[in-house]
Amino acid sequence: MKIGYIQFNPIFGEVQKNLDRTIELITKGKEADLLVLPELCTTGYLFIDKSELQRFGEKVPDGPSTKAWSKIAKETDTFIVAGICEKVSDSEFYNSAVLVGPEGFIDVYRKIHLFNNEKDFFKAGNGPFKIYDLGDAKIGIMVCFDWVFPETARILALHGADIICHPANLVLQFSQKTMLARSIENRIFTITANRTGEDIRPNSQLSFTGLSQITSPKMELLAQSNEHDEDVKIVEIDPMQARNKMITANNHLFLDRRVELYSPLLKKEVEK
Amino acid sequence: MKIGYIQFNPIFGEVQKNLDRTIELITKGKEADLLVLPELCTTGYLFIDKSELQRFGEKVPDGPSTKAWSKIAKETDTFIVAGICEKVSDSEFYNSAVLVGPEGFIDVYRKIHLFNNEKDFFKAGNGPFKIYDLGDAKIGIMVCFDWVFPETARILALHGADIICHPANLVLQFSQKTMLARSIENRIFTITANRTGEDIRPNSQLSFTGLSQITSPKMELLAQSNEHDEDVKIVEIDPMQARNKMITANNHLFLDRRVELYSPLLKKEVEK
Repeated sequence: MKIGYIQFNPIFGEVQKNLDRTIELITKGKEADLLVLPELCTTGYLFIDKSELQRFGEKVPDGPSTKAWSKIAKETDTFIVAGICEKVSDSEFYNSAVLVGPEGFIDVYRKIHLFNNEKDFFKAGNGPFKIYDLGDAKIGIMVCFDWVFPETARILALHGADIICHPANLVLQFSQKTMLARSIENRIFTITANRTGEDIRPNSQLSFTGLSQITSPKMELLAQSNEHDEDVKIVEIDPMQARNKMITANNHLFLDRRVELYSPLLKKEVEK
Repeated sequence: MKIGYIQFNPIFGEVQKNLDRTIELITKGKEADLLVLPELCTTGYLFIDKSELQRFGEKVPDGPSTKAWSKIAKETDTFIVAGICEKVSDSEFYNSAVLVGPEGFIDVYRKIHLFNNEKDFFKAGNGPFKIYDLGDAKIGIMVCFDWVFPETARILALHGADIICHPANLVLQFSQKTMLARSIENRIFTITANRTGEDIRPNSQLSFTGLSQITSPKMELLAQSNEHDEDVKIVEIDPMQARNKMITANNHLFLDRRVELYSPLLKKEVEK
């Protein structure tokens, strides 16, 4: 199975231009079976008021970006996970990732852990955690800041994800390193598609760190881009590596979890 | 607060020699308020039959090693966490870590996730997870392979640990990298005290990777030893850094956890 990502620099508010660029880059990566694109990749990241979300946000699945990605997914026979500003109404927006494939639109994941000022603009998603069986592999989706909560990847992996697709707009480099840990602690592949460049807005500015990457269940960095350049990277993997949770002759990574000892605290949380 | 570790090469089965060496090295590190020593640091690691555990294992707290560590802890005004083969009876052994301090013996932690052949020799500990308030900081204890289960550090941190003390006998280097993730995802300090050298036994052999380290809540490597040499490393930290879980103006690392979304799976586990 060939999995990959697209790293590029969306221009803030230039939705059509950004969408066109994603189509060009997806075409370039058409040999992939699965491609991940960055978070909010048609709009840019640094919104300064809600009217911008009203203008640049899109319906899912009926907006032009999801339609265009569904079309190219059919043409290239590729599953695509891409970050988008999802507009439900003029007052309800999500930082989402759509999943489309050769048969068209499949689903949308709404980011559950919002970062910093995202809370001013987006509603948080309410799950539930879902796994999608693509035939060659089962995938789960998380977006950017979800990385810092080990529960996200853990629950996706416990539900059967072989690969975690991780659209991101990372401003630091902690996530890239931590996703290696997510891989080894869950024995899964991860694909982090980060953006590059800057959003320069009135009175505010953010730089993004690139370094998009693919990690293996053995904590290998199978691919990584640099901090600055647009890039399409594809690697061939055997997703079945992620199904073998026997990490020694005597240790099953999931069955060895001491759930009965974790439970007292978990129980309190469940009762909340 | 000064925290540190001792990295050294225990000689298999030479309990008195190893204990003497720990006392010398603790004396060398006496300026520390908290010192962590490797897993099974008086016996060595690679047991080949249970009679060896009967000969080299010790009662806790009444065995000679715990007594000697309690004495030196009083003399140097230091808290010490050290790995030991704990003998409850001639048929019941734990891979344990004792905690002693200026007032003497405090408690013993019995490793809950046993690695590979350890299951042939040791019983697994049954918790519960505990936090110890040393005055300057609250600490939690985990041993070696506990690192791979993110739940271990997570639960200790949720219970209030500022510092995780991590005696280890690591044969690979995944843990050292992952403990950096444990630090950032929980905003805590971690001290991994690993051993060096080899256990060469009839028909089996293991090499250990050193690289003992101290990590900060900001994912910094505050100290790290090399792979081979005996070493005592001490760094000064402000444990209160670990109490601030506001990682942005709008994100509290623990309160932002979406426990209600994690719950469906957790609930199933709690009900087991």
